[in-house]
Amino acid sequence: MSPHRDRLRGLEQRVGVLLEALPYIREFAGDTIVIKYGGAAMVAPELKASFARDVALLKLVGMNPVVVHGGGPDISRYSERLGLEVRFVEGLRVTDAATMELAKMVLVGKVNKEIVAQLNVAGVRAVGLAGEDGGLIRATHAEHAADLGFVGRVESVDPHVLERLGDFVPVVASVGVDDEGQSYNINADTVAGSLAGALGARKVIFLTDVEGIRRDAGDPRSIVSECRLVELEDMVSSGAVSGGMLPKLAAVRDALAHGVGAAHVVDGRVAHSALMEVFTEDGVGTKITA
Amino acid sequence: MSPHRDRLRGLEQRVGVLLEALPYIREFAGDTIVIKYGGAAMVAPELKASFARDVALLKLVGMNPVVVHGGGPDISRYSERLGLEVRFVEGLRVTDAATMELAKMVLVGKVNKEIVAQLNVAGVRAVGLAGEDGGLIRATHAEHAADLGFVGRVESVDPHVLERLGDFVPVVASVGVDDEGQSYNINADTVAGSLAGALGARKVIFLTDVEGIRRDAGDPRSIVSECRLVELEDMVSSGAVSGGMLPKLAAVRDALAHGVGAAHVVDGRVAHSALMEVFTEDGVGTKITA
Amino acid sequence: MSPHRDRLRGLEQRVGVLLEALPYIREFAGDTIVIKYGGAAMVAPELKASFARDVALLKLVGMNPVVVHGGGPDISRYSERLGLEVRFVEGLRVTDAATMELAKMVLVGKVNKEIVAQLNVAGVRAVGLAGEDGGLIRATHAEHAADLGFVGRVESVDPHVLERLGDFVPVVASVGVDDEGQSYNINADTVAGSLAGALGARKVIFLTDVEGIRRDAGDPRSIVSECRLVELEDMVSSGAVSGGMLPKLAAVRDALAHGVGAAHVVDGRVAHSALMEVFTEDGVGTKITA
Amino acid sequence: MSPHRDRLRGLEQRVGVLLEALPYIREFAGDTIVIKYGGAAMVAPELKASFARDVALLKLVGMNPVVVHGGGPDISRYSERLGLEVRFVEGLRVTDAATMELAKMVLVGKVNKEIVAQLNVAGVRAVGLAGEDGGLIRATHAEHAADLGFVGRVESVDPHVLERLGDFVPVVASVGVDDEGQSYNINADTVAGSLAGALGARKVIFLTDVEGIRRDAGDPRSIVSECRLVELEDMVSSGAVSGGMLPKLAAVRDALAHGVGAAHVVDGRVAHSALMEVFTEDGVGTKITA
Amino acid sequence: MSPHRDRLRGLEQRVGVLLEALPYIREFAGDTIVIKYGGAAMVAPELKASFARDVALLKLVGMNPVVVHGGGPDISRYSERLGLEVRFVEGLRVTDAATMELAKMVLVGKVNKEIVAQLNVAGVRAVGLAGEDGGLIRATHAEHAADLGFVGRVESVDPHVLERLGDFVPVVASVGVDDEGQSYNINADTVAGSLAGALGARKVIFLTDVEGIRRDAGDPRSIVSECRLVELEDMVSSGAVSGGMLPKLAAVRDALAHGVGAAHVVDGRVAHSALMEVFTEDGVGTKITA
Amino acid sequence: MSPHRDRLRGLEQRVGVLLEALPYIREFAGDTIVIKYGGAAMVAPELKASFARDVALLKLVGMNPVVVHGGGPDISRYSERLGLEVRFVEGLRVTDAATMELAKMVLVGKVNKEIVAQLNVAGVRAVGLAGEDGGLIRATHAEHAADLGFVGRVESVDPHVLERLGDFVPVVASVGVDDEGQSYNINADTVAGSLAGALGARKVIFLTDVEGIRRDAGDPRSIVSECRLVELEDMVSSGAVSGGMLPKLAAVRDALAHGVGAAHVVDGRVAHSALMEVFTEDGVGTKITA
Repeated sequence: MSPHRDRLRGLEQRVGVLLEALPYIREFAGDTIVIKYGGAAMVAPELKASFARDVALLKLVGMNPVVVHGGGPDISRYSERLGLEVRFVEGLRVTDAATMELAKMVLVGKVNKEIVAQLNVAGVRAVGLAGEDGGLIRATHAEHAADLGFVGRVESVDPHVLERLGDFVPVVASVGVDDEGQSYNINADTVAGSLAGALGARKVIFLTDVEGIRRDAGDPRSIVSECRLVELEDMVSSGAVSGGMLPKLAAVRDALAHGVGAAHVVDGRVAHSALMEVFTEDGVGTKITA
Repeated sequence: MSPHRDRLRGLEQRVGVLLEALPYIREFAGDTIVIKYGGAAMVAPELKASFARDVALLKLVGMNPVVVHGGGPDISRYSERLGLEVRFVEGLRVTDAATMELAKMVLVGKVNKEIVAQLNVAGVRAVGLAGEDGGLIRATHAEHAADLGFVGRVESVDPHVLERLGDFVPVVASVGVDDEGQSYNINADTVAGSLAGALGARKVIFLTDVEGIRRDAGDPRSIVSECRLVELEDMVSSGAVSGGMLPKLAAVRDALAHGVGAAHVVDGRVAHSALMEVFTEDGVGTKITA
Repeated sequence: MSPHRDRLRGLEQRVGVLLEALPYIREFAGDTIVIKYGGAAMVAPELKASFARDVALLKLVGMNPVVVHGGGPDISRYSERLGLEVRFVEGLRVTDAATMELAKMVLVGKVNKEIVAQLNVAGVRAVGLAGEDGGLIRATHAEHAADLGFVGRVESVDPHVLERLGDFVPVVASVGVDDEGQSYNINADTVAGSLAGALGARKVIFLTDVEGIRRDAGDPRSIVSECRLVELEDMVSSGAVSGGMLPKLAAVRDALAHGVGAAHVVDGRVAHSALMEVFTEDGVGTKITA
Repeated sequence: MSPHRDRLRGLEQRVGVLLEALPYIREFAGDTIVIKYGGAAMVAPELKASFARDVALLKLVGMNPVVVHGGGPDISRYSERLGLEVRFVEGLRVTDAATMELAKMVLVGKVNKEIVAQLNVAGVRAVGLAGEDGGLIRATHAEHAADLGFVGRVESVDPHVLERLGDFVPVVASVGVDDEGQSYNINADTVAGSLAGALGARKVIFLTDVEGIRRDAGDPRSIVSECRLVELEDMVSSGAVSGGMLPKLAAVRDALAHGVGAAHVVDGRVAHSALMEVFTEDGVGTKITA
Repeated sequence: MSPHRDRLRGLEQRVGVLLEALPYIREFAGDTIVIKYGGAAMVAPELKASFARDVALLKLVGMNPVVVHGGGPDISRYSERLGLEVRFVEGLRVTDAATMELAKMVLVGKVNKEIVAQLNVAGVRAVGLAGEDGGLIRATHAEHAADLGFVGRVESVDPHVLERLGDFVPVVASVGVDDEGQSYNINADTVAGSLAGALGARKVIFLTDVEGIRRDAGDPRSIVSECRLVELEDMVSSGAVSGGMLPKLAAVRDALAHGVGAAHVVDGRVAHSALMEVFTEDGVGTKITA
Repeated sequence: MSPHRDRLRGLEQRVGVLLEALPYIREFAGDTIVIKYGGAAMVAPELKASFARDVALLKLVGMNPVVVHGGGPDISRYSERLGLEVRFVEGLRVTDAATMELAKMVLVGKVNKEIVAQLNVAGVRAVGLAGEDGGLIRATHAEHAADLGFVGRVESVDPHVLERLGDFVPVVASVGVDDEGQSYNINADTVAGSLAGALGARKVIFLTDVEGIRRDAGDPRSIVSECRLVELEDMVSSGAVSGGMLPKLAAVRDALAHGVGAAHVVDGRVAHSALMEVFTEDGVGTKITA
C-alpha cells in the first residue's frame, strides 16, 4: 500500500474518533459540568497536566466546566512543618484557628493557583475563587458530636460571580465564609455537589482513587457502571458502600435533588478519566441518576 | 492483560485524538470557514453523509462553516430529459432562459435542499440560500467572446443575511441575480472565493476530484502540500497548472486578496478530507497562502 | 381656478388617502401578517407585480408580512414534460418520489425564487425558505384512505429561523420534512394557518380565485363580509360552503385556535386585494374571527 | 357597472395613492425630519389638527419627526394684558426679565403643551421640551447693536435627551438656557436649523406664511421649486430675497453646513403642506440643497 | 496640638459623616424616591438651592429621585394681575378655562423650568414633564359637590416615558390630560402618591410647612416620628389629623396600597429635610408604613 | 435652644458634609481608582476596618476602586517559622522556590482573602485575584545585578477579567506568572502603577507609612501638597527623595505615562486617608500630576 494511502488511513481513524465525539459535544453544548478534582489526579505531575487538557477540551468544545478542589496532603505536610497538631475525627480534619489559616493558605494560595496556572498553560483562561470571593459560599459550623473547630457546611451558594466570569473557567477552593468573615474548611465533595445544584449543572463528576462504586466491596469486578440513586442507598443500607464514599454519596444526593442530571464517580488515577466519562457511552466509572 | 485495562487503553487512544485536535479548535474558534462542496463528494451517498458530519463537527466545536455548492451532473441529466440542448464552451455551460430556469430548479430546489436536510440529520440547523435571498449575490453577465446566455459573474456580495442567521449553517447555491431580478448561473468556485472574501473568512476549502495541486502535471507524486500564491502563479505560467484548476485559482486569488488567511484544494473523493485539512498539521491537499 | 390651486387640490386628495390609512398603520404596527399567495395572483404578470408592491408597503409601514405559497400549475406542466403521471385524489396531488423531487424543484427553485426576486425589485429584502431551512416545518404523512405518496401534514413549526431574519420578508414554500430528511408536499393553506398560529400572527390572509365566501353558493350577491367561525361551520353543515373552500376552512380553524386575530379570504384576481383588506374598514372579501 | 365594481375601483385608486408613497417611505425610513412649526399653521384650528396628523403619519411610517416651535402672537397678547411693553427691533422682540418669564410661560406652558396634546390625540406619543430639559439648548446673549435683553443665540445643542426619547415625538420650544440657569428667547428658525444639524437630520422643513421663495419678490408666479444654496445667496445679494426670509436663510445655511440633506420652505397656510413636500416629487414650496 | 493634627481631626469628622451615610446609600441603591416639592421650600431662594442639591446628591449616590410639584402662590398672583377671579372651595382652586390655561403656563412654563434649571446648576440633568408628555398622567373630572371646573383626579399613570429618561431626573408638574386633550389641575400630593405607586417607588416624601404629623393637633411636642397607616387613620377619626393634611393622607394611602415602602411627611422649611429623612435613622418628620 | 433645634442643627451639619462631597462624587463617577494597600493600614485592626469602609463608600457612590496589595510582614514571619532564610538585597526579598511558594500562600491565601472578607463585611462584594487569574499579570524575571530568584517585573496586564467582574471590587495580590506557569513576587507599588495604566484609571493612591513627600527629607513641615512629576524628578536628583520612595516613584511615572490623571502618596497610618484624599480639596498627602 502506498504511503499516501497509509497516511490517509491514519487520518481517517483520527477523524473517526472526532466524529464519535459529535453526539456528546452536541448533547452537552452550553451545559455546566462540575468536576471535583482531588486524590492521585492532583498529585502525579502527568495526571495534573492531562487533567488540565481535559478541562480545556471540554471548555473549547462548548461546555462550561467548573473545577472544585480540596487541599490534599499539602495541608498535613505544612501543618507538621509548622508544628501544628494533625488530627482527624471520622475523616474530618480537626481545624483550630491556626490550622484554618494554614488550610486557606494551602488551598487558595498554593493548590488553587497551581490548577489555574496549569489551565492557562493548557490554553484556557481560568480564575481561582474561594468562598469569600463574590460571596460565593456562605458557610456555618458543621454539626458534629466532637468539637472539630472550623469545619463547616455549606449554608448557601450565590453563583452570581461565576455567571459574571463568562468565558473563564472557575476553579473553586473548598472554603466557605460566614457573615462575620470567619472562614470554614468544607469537604470538597460537598462543595462540588452544592455548586452543581446551584448552577443547574448537567453533570457533576467526582475524581476518586477507586475504579468506581463496587456492588460487592470485596470484589473488584463488581464495579457498577450505571445505577439509580435509590439502588445506591440500598448498597449503603447493606453495607456494600461505606467509608470515604459516604460523604461523596451525600453530595450526589444533594446535587441530584437540585436537578443535576447525573453524578459520576470516576477513577482519577487513570489519565483523562473525566473526558472518557463525558465522551463515551459507558464511561470508566459509575454513573448515578435520580 | 485484563479486559478493563484493554478497554481503558482503547479509550485513552480515543481521548488522545480528541486532545490532538485541541490546538486547532482553539485556533479557529469563532472563525468563518467557507467550503466549496462539489464533485464526487456530492454524488456518492457515503461521502455525502460524511461531509455533513464534518460540517456539523466544525460548527459544534465553535467554527462557522459556510457551504457553497454548484449543481453538478443533475442539471445536464434533467436538461436531457426535458430535451434542452446541453452545450459547454471552455467548460462553461451555455445557459439560455429555459436552461437557466432549470438550473435554478436543480440547484436551489433539489441539490441545496438535500444538503440542508443532510446537515439537519447530522445535527446542526442549516438554512439554504440562493443569490436572491436577502440580496446575497448581485451578479451581471460574465464577459466572454461567445454568447453564453445567462452565465454570470459576481458583482458584489451583501453578507448581511448570513450574519443574521447566527447559529444556523448557511448553504449557498451558486446563483446570482441582477437589479431587474434576472438570475445568472455562476461558477461555484468563484462564489466561494467571493463569499470568503466578503465574510472575512479564515479559510476557504475547495473539495475537488484531484489529490491536490501537482508541481508536475504528469507526476502524481508531485502533490504540493503548501505554497505561496506567487509560486502557484509560476506553475500556471510554466503550464504545470491548467484546465479545471484555473477557475479555482482565480477564486483563490480573489479570496487571498480580500484577506482570507488560506485557501485549500483538497481531495473530495476521500471521506472527511475537509476535516483532515482543518484538524491536522499538513492536511491532505494543497494549502495556499498569500 | 389657477393651475397652482389645481395642483394643490390633487395633492390634498392624495394626502387625504394617506391619512385615512393612518389608523390601520397604527393598529397593525409591529404585527405579523401571514399571506397565503396563490391562484391567479401568482400567474398574471401584472398581479404578481402588484402583489410584490403590496407586501413591500406592508413591510415599510411597520408590519411584518410573511408570504406562504404553493406550486400552482407549474408542477403539472413540468410533470407532463418529464412524462410523470399527474393524478389527483380529492384535490390532493398523488406524489410519488419522482413527483416529490420535481415538486420541490418547482416550488423552491422556481416559484419561491421568483417571488423573492420580485419583492427585492419592489424594494424590500426577502429570503426564501422551505420546511428544511432551519428545521422550519416538521411534517409527516397525511392520513388518507388512498395512498397519496409524499403528501404530508404539518407536525410542528419551529419559528426560530423566521425570528432571526428580522427585517427580511420571509417567503415560505409549502414543503415539510421529517426527521430522516424525507420531504413532503403540504397544502399551502394548511402551512399558512400553522405558521400564523406559531408566529402569533395578527392576521392570516388567503388569496383565492373567488370573491369571498358566499352564504348561498349559487348567489354571487351573497358574499359574507364578516362572520364568526361558528357561522362558517354552520354554512359547511348546511352545504353552503364546500369544495376547495374546505381545506382553507381547516386552516382558518387552526389559526384562530392558536390565537390569530382574524382570517381573511380575499379575491386574489383583484389587484391589491390584500392591501385593501388591511387598509379599509370593510375590505374586499370575507373576514372570519373566532 | 355593478356597485361591487364601483367600490373596487374606489379602493384601487386609494391603494394606488398609498403605493405612490412607497418610494418616499422607503427613502426616508429611519431618517430624522425637523419641522419648524409656526405662522398660520399654528393658529387656525383645522390647520393645527391637520399638522398633528401629518406628523403622526411621518412617525408611523418610520421617520423621526422633530417639531420646533416659537410662541406666535400669544406672547404679545399676554404681554398687553399684563401691561408689559411690546417692542421689536429689526423683527426681534425686546425681552426684559418680566417678558422673558412670560415668554417662557406662553411657549412652554401653553403652546408646547397644546402641540403635545394634539399629537397625542392624533395617535402618537409626544414629549414637550424646552432648552433647559436635559441641557438640550445652551444659549448665550445674541450680539446686537441695541440692548435686546434676553434675546439669545444657540451656543450648543446636546441631543442626548432626544436620543433617549426613542419612539416619542419631541416637541421643542425655542428657549435656551445658559450655565447659570438664565433663559433666553431664541428665534425658532434658528433653533430648528441648529437641531437639524446636531441630529444629523435628513430634512429641515420651515412652515411659513408664503408660498415659497420667489425669484422676483414682486411676482407670485416666480416661486422657485428647487435651488442650490449658492443661488439663494445670489438672490439675497440682488435683493430678491429679504425681510423675514433672512433669519430663515441663516438657519438653512447652518443646517446645510452641518450635513442636513435638504431644507424646505413651504406654505403652512395650505393643509398638509409638510406631508406633500415629503411625499411628492416636486412638493409645494422651495427645496434648497447645499 | 499641631495644625496638621487639627486639620486631620476636621477631615476625620467629615469622613465619619460620609461613612454614616454608607448603610443608607447601600440600602436605597437603585431605588426610586418620589418627592413632592412645595410650600416654603419652593419659595425661599436658599431653600430652593438646598433642595436642588439634595436631589442631586440622591441621584449621584445611586438613587432615582422623581420630583413632583404644584404651582404654589404664583398662580394666584398672575390670576390677579390678569383680572381672573381667585376662588377656593374646600382648599381646591375653582378652575375655569382661562384659569386652567394660566395655571398650566405657571406650572409648566415657569415653576417646572425653574426647578429643572436649578437641578442642572446643581449638576444633574433634569427633564421637566407635564401629564401630556408621553401620555404620563391621564386625568378626568374630580367628583365634587360644587362645580370646580377643570379640577381633576388621576385616572391612570403610564410611566413609560419616565423609564426611557434613564439617567435624567424627571420633574413632573401636577397637570393631567384626558383623551380629548383637555388639561386638568390636580392636587400635587395626589400626583406624587399615584406616581410613587406606578413606579414601584421605595419612598414618597412630602415636603410640607409643618414639622410633621402631631398626635395632638395643639401640642407641637407631639410630633409622631414613625407610625403605621392604621394609626394615622385613627388620628383622623379622632380629629387629631385634619385640614390640609387630609389630601396628603389620601396620597399616602394610595402609595402604600400600591406597594410603596414608606411615606414621609417632612418639614420643608428646614433646609435639606428630604436628605435628612433619607440619610438618618429617625429623620426629621413622620414616617408612615403600611 | 429647644432639643428639636439642637437635633436639627446636628443633622444640618452632617448633611452639609455630605453635600460638600457632591462635587467629588460627580467628578469621579464611573472612574477607576487604584489603591495600593499596605504598611500600617494593613496591620492595625481598626485601620483595616476603616480601609474596608472607605473602599465600600467609594464603590457605593459610583466609583470603581481596585485594591492592590503586597504581603507585608506575614511572609517573613512564616518564613522564619518554616526555617526559610529571610534575606533582602536593596529592599527586595531574595525569593527562592520555597520562599516563592510560601509568599504566594501568604499573599493569596491569607492576606488577599482577609481583605476580601473585610470588604464583604463592609457591604460590597469583592473578588480576590492573583496574576494567574484570567491571565491578569504576565511577569518575567526582574533584571538585577544580584540573583534574587523569583523576583519579577510586570511584562503586561490583561484587564479583561477585571472588566468582566463588573460590580465586584477586585482585590489584586502582587504576584505575576510567566507563560510556563512560573510565579513571580512583584513589588506591589509597581503592580498598582501598571494596573492603573492598563485600566485607564483616574487616580492611583499609594497608602504609605509617611505623611507624604517631603521637599526637605529632614523637615517634617516640608510636606508637598501637590506637584508635577518633573518637580519630583528634580527632588530625586537633588537627593531630597530617596530610599523606599524610589520604587513608588517609578510606579507613579509608569501610571502617569499611561494616562492616569493623578497619583497620590498618602499617610496610611491615618484612618480614612484614602477617602480624605478623594473627597477633599487639598487632601492629606502628596498629589502628583503629569
